[in-house]
Amino acid sequence: SVNPDLASERQTASFSVEKLTVWLDGGVENTRTRRAVVEAIESDPVFSRENQYFQSQNERYEAAVRKAVHLQKKMHEMGWTENGPEYKYIYRALAGDVAFLLHRIFVRSISMLGSDKQIAKWIPLASQYQLIGSYAQTELGHGTYLQGLETTAVFDSTTQEFILNTPKISAMKWWPGDMGRSATHTVAFAQLYIQGKCYGVHPFIVQIRSLRDHSLCPGITAGDIGPKMSFEHADNGFLLLQGVRVPRENMLSKFCEVQPDGTYVRWGSQKINYFTMTSVRISLLSDEVIMPTMKACTIAIRYSVVRRQSKLKPGEQEAKILDYQTQQEKLLPQLAAAYAFYFINDYLQELFDNGYKEIQKKNFDMLPELHAFSSGFKAVVTQHCTSAVEICLRACGGHGYSLLSGLPSLYTKILASCIYEGENTILLLQTARFLIKCFMAASAGQPVPPSVTYLAAVKPRRCPAKNKLDFLSPDIYTEAYQHMAARLVSSTAAKLQDLIQSGVKKHDAWNQCTVQLAQASKAHCHYIAVKNFAETVEKLQTQAGIQEIMKHLCDLFALHGIFSNAGAFLHDGYLSGAQMDMVTASYLDLLPIIRKDAVPLVDAFDFTDRSLNSALGSYDGHVYQRLYEWAQKSPTNKQMSPAYEKYLKPLLHNKLSKL
Amino acid sequence: SVNPDLASERQTASFSVEKLTVWLDGGVENTRTRRAVVEAIESDPVFSRENQYFQSQNERYEAAVRKAVHLQKKMHEMGWTENGPEYKYIYRALAGDVAFLLHRIFVRSISMLGSDKQIAKWIPLASQYQLIGSYAQTELGHGTYLQGLETTAVFDSTTQEFILNTPKISAMKWWPGDMGRSATHTVAFAQLYIQGKCYGVHPFIVQIRSLRDHSLCPGITAGDIGPKMSFEHADNGFLLLQGVRVPRENMLSKFCEVQPDGTYVRWGSQKINYFTMTSVRISLLSDEVIMPTMKACTIAIRYSVVRRQSKLKPGEQEAKILDYQTQQEKLLPQLAAAYAFYFINDYLQELFDNGYKEIQKKNFDMLPELHAFSSGFKAVVTQHCTSAVEICLRACGGHGYSLLSGLPSLYTKILASCIYEGENTILLLQTARFLIKCFMAASAGQPVPPSVTYLAAVKPRRCPAKNKLDFLSPDIYTEAYQHMAARLVSSTAAKLQDLIQSGVKKHDAWNQCTVQLAQASKAHCHYIAVKNFAETVEKLQTQAGIQEIMKHLCDLFALHGIFSNAGAFLHDGYLSGAQMDMVTASYLDLLPIIRKDAVPLVDAFDFTDRSLNSALGSYDGHVYQRLYEWAQKSPTNKQMSPAYEKYLKPLLHNKLSKL
Repeated sequence: SVNPDLASERQTASFSVEKLTVWLDGGVENTRTRRAVVEAIESDPVFSRENQYFQSQNERYEAAVRKAVHLQKKMHEMGWTENGPEYKYIYRALAGDVAFLLHRIFVRSISMLGSDKQIAKWIPLASQYQLIGSYAQTELGHGTYLQGLETTAVFDSTTQEFILNTPKISAMKWWPGDMGRSATHTVAFAQLYIQGKCYGVHPFIVQIRSLRDHSLCPGITAGDIGPKMSFEHADNGFLLLQGVRVPRENMLSKFCEVQPDGTYVRWGSQKINYFTMTSVRISLLSDEVIMPTMKACTIAIRYSVVRRQSKLKPGEQEAKILDYQTQQEKLLPQLAAAYAFYFINDYLQELFDNGYKEIQKKNFDMLPELHAFSSGFKAVVTQHCTSAVEICLRACGGHGYSLLSGLPSLYTKILASCIYEGENTILLLQTARFLIKCFMAASAGQPVPPSVTYLAAVKPRRCPAKNKLDFLSPDIYTEAYQHMAARLVSSTAAKLQDLIQSGVKKHDAWNQCTVQLAQASKAHCHYIAVKNFAETVEKLQTQAGIQEIMKHLCDLFALHGIFSNAGAFLHDGYLSGAQMDMVTASYLDLLPIIRKDAVPLVDAFDFTDRSLNSALGSYDGHVYQRLYEWAQKSPTNKQMSPAYEKYLKPLLHNKLSKL
Repeated sequence: SVNPDLASERQTASFSVEKLTVWLDGGVENTRTRRAVVEAIESDPVFSRENQYFQSQNERYEAAVRKAVHLQKKMHEMGWTENGPEYKYIYRALAGDVAFLLHRIFVRSISMLGSDKQIAKWIPLASQYQLIGSYAQTELGHGTYLQGLETTAVFDSTTQEFILNTPKISAMKWWPGDMGRSATHTVAFAQLYIQGKCYGVHPFIVQIRSLRDHSLCPGITAGDIGPKMSFEHADNGFLLLQGVRVPRENMLSKFCEVQPDGTYVRWGSQKINYFTMTSVRISLLSDEVIMPTMKACTIAIRYSVVRRQSKLKPGEQEAKILDYQTQQEKLLPQLAAAYAFYFINDYLQELFDNGYKEIQKKNFDMLPELHAFSSGFKAVVTQHCTSAVEICLRACGGHGYSLLSGLPSLYTKILASCIYEGENTILLLQTARFLIKCFMAASAGQPVPPSVTYLAAVKPRRCPAKNKLDFLSPDIYTEAYQHMAARLVSSTAAKLQDLIQSGVKKHDAWNQCTVQLAQASKAHCHYIAVKNFAETVEKLQTQAGIQEIMKHLCDLFALHGIFSNAGAFLHDGYLSGAQMDMVTASYLDLLPIIRKDAVPLVDAFDFTDRSLNSALGSYDGHVYQRLYEWAQKSPTNKQMSPAYEKYLKPLLHNKLSKL
């Protein structure tokens, strides 16, 4: 039976939850497939996450390997393939705690960077797990700046081998997943040297552990980098190479080759490398960032209608905490953002698919835009969602702080997404470089991609809104975002120009503008996110019930952004103080409206209790009962702590009282 | 030897680090005492934190008990007493990982709420550890709203006992520290019933475990609540009471008593209860919030001059990451905030000491102000510092995410400070209630405390600054903050009035204003913090070298706040867009100035390497070497994981390749 406080929330939904779920999935067929995959995985005890919150790093790793190995069997059993419709739902169903993700990157990198011969040799071995791969790029001393990698690969023409070394401690490979304890092979990135000349960073396949007994190969030192804030299941590793020899054929050579006599030959475009990063950045958003945010919203919102605390009106029952304006203001904008980014993910995927089609036709024109958008949105979405999950955690008070709520694990894991696959500030500055370039081009009347033509149109204007209801018009707020983004780009471009004209060197001038450049990039992405949300709502015309609530969420997303960044809109008078008061009024008015549908809106995400793994967020709302049951299973309650015999007993018995 | 990249930072300090340290400590005598305490604790292997990042919850608890027990010996040995000058440095030296903190609250609550007879009986027992105490207030279902506690204590006049019960699952005590496994006694809060009539929440001393063998007493169910985001060392517990009888004398009776015939008598003022909370909120800021923020700044700033990544200028060596404007903009405002809050702590302490003197003279006039300030600053400082630590963590990239950096532990622990001892939103609304009241009174010409007289002076004005240098004048920016805070309080008061006059019920109107009320409280505290920082700098006249750098930090703290909350200053035209550009320019100009002294500024905090416990933050800057050494000690590297024999070997050997 469902807690009546949660049940009542479901009786008044303004729309059909199932219809919304199906729409989010992209059709009833997808919903069916997804549920079947989730059911198959969750009903299999090997994949259980029941004791996850009680496990040590060692136990988490062991479980992740167990699941990864079992998954191979399971896929075979179920007839799931890597190209089948089920595949994309497997990771979601496993909720991430599985090994061999870097093995997959190993495979992908060989497929993309290897010659046909290399692909023919290595891919079947990897696919059948006759080896376990990893991907060794990052070093102790270098992450962002790949050109600075210090590992070396020196070509020895007498033996037709490369000799790999990590010549100093900062050159040690550090962080690669699956490498600390699992991998037998890795793709290691190193500076290629031929006859004393450096040719830059290249990838080499290196065996690091014996296939027979898993012992480290000669010249290899490797291990686990120790405890992290999350990712306890992953054996992120270190790797030292001392005179490790690999045959000439082990340098991945789709785009370049070292010939037997030491001649270096390069062909093809290097630009395609951007495309790999673009693809990874886009694909991580859904599973690693947006999905966890949707989970956090589900947990916090369900808990907030079950938790009652204090009285809103004297003499009445204690109120559900979601009835407090401050609680609504914490959670509902995060819910709106989760939807906004769910839709942005579709937008980016479409952009990517179009780009991919062009690239296959050898047209690389879309690459800069794709790179700029995937970088900017990776930064903006990970940053926003990390903060959203933290807000959800804190909005659940003390119980949110318990691991049993599920929220700390979501938070500590999503936080890493701000750092990996490109540190966010660096990414924002890459987007900024594109925006400034486009702004200059557009100002000079040159053609720019359609997504940034708006940059040319910046001019002093004022928002035409006359009352608070005007701010519920997508045209009004989309325009405001557009104006604000264009202003930030153009004013930063002007500052950059001024500095350079006043004699500051170009790179110094750039550095002195980076704080504002990063802001401009965020503003651009925020504008695109609002615009895309509004267009998504527009397209929903046929599904009236859903359209209405989505419109409310879109309004909330947009107005919350204006409310929270008021300065950017007020700065040049585009909005007046009086209009900002209208924004605030409309924004606050939306909260109680969306609050009515808050539970149905998270129900529509269709997470099972097992996938939430939260004592606070279950569908039935029996929060306190579940917290108590789960706590009793904690290893801290399994036996009396040795601390009693060792310390407490002697302390207390020293002067045993006669109480 | 020190890493040259760090050593060079120390050679160009614009001030004497030692002088700043002594000034921060409040005199050379304090510095000497502090260092002696730290030395005594850190040189004692029992207090070692060396393997802390590798320990399980069980191990952390055991270590915390070991340290707490050993500390008694140590204090005796060293001649330290609870009233001695060393006492306040002990906790800092232990870095928090020690048990029996709730035992101390147990003692404090009996001292404050118990009768002389109760004090005479229980305090000696507790002081000599003939029992271990806890403090059981929070329940599964109630934290913030104490009146809603569900535990009951029914007076049975026939036996002269109270019968305690937790009648439903939500009534279970939940979260009390030291209770899950250590405590033998607790002060439990329960609704007092006499002959069917409820007299509200009262405190009762309850024995929960046998003094002989630590088994649970009859009617008691207790245990550990399981894993949390941090505080692994603390045995936060649960407690069910089923018909537990305690003698009449166990109700703490300084302010009220149940007489043998069941007559309830109350005397004294209940207001004094506020004072306890006030005292706890102020005292937690220093050790639990500001100190960790100073540590995080130390770690991140030292790392940022050792870490080199990418090139600022083509052809040059890779740059220290602290030379990038974006890195400065992340870290230096946090450093300025750490100083600002260090000074606010002194301010609050003084306010508290003055209040205490008055209270001893039975003058309770200062209580509302004290309560409002301690609530507001608890919320603002914990919120700001939590975010500061997160920024420091993220600014260290991947290595910041490793537990070995020390930053994740600082973050997960400081986050709790936003929740415990009053949830921050609730606290801000209590401050707001005081501000609105004072605003009304001041507007009506009635007297208000000096700290809030400014509220009466709100009127449309414009900032007189003419160029960016004007914004380096404390008068200019303090005025701006004052105006902004007064405007937010008065406009929210006006909204509240309007709603009530338009017929909205008072409590509904209040709820509809809470988002803005919380903002107004924050603005007030921010104003006071800026003003106090400026006044602190003013007083430093005699120490010129220090005053100059403190002035820069004060400017940075103030301008960063305006830059980040631009909307609040632009809203009514107090600052124009052009003036905001001046603020931005002055703010960004300050970054490279303070950057030069960044390392000396954190060195002055005088944290030992042991207290930082960070592979990134050590005094000598040998970051990579230390990360590698520490990682090798991880239990994940102690032996081959069973996962190999169980899963990997069968997988790989299944089709052992002939590679």
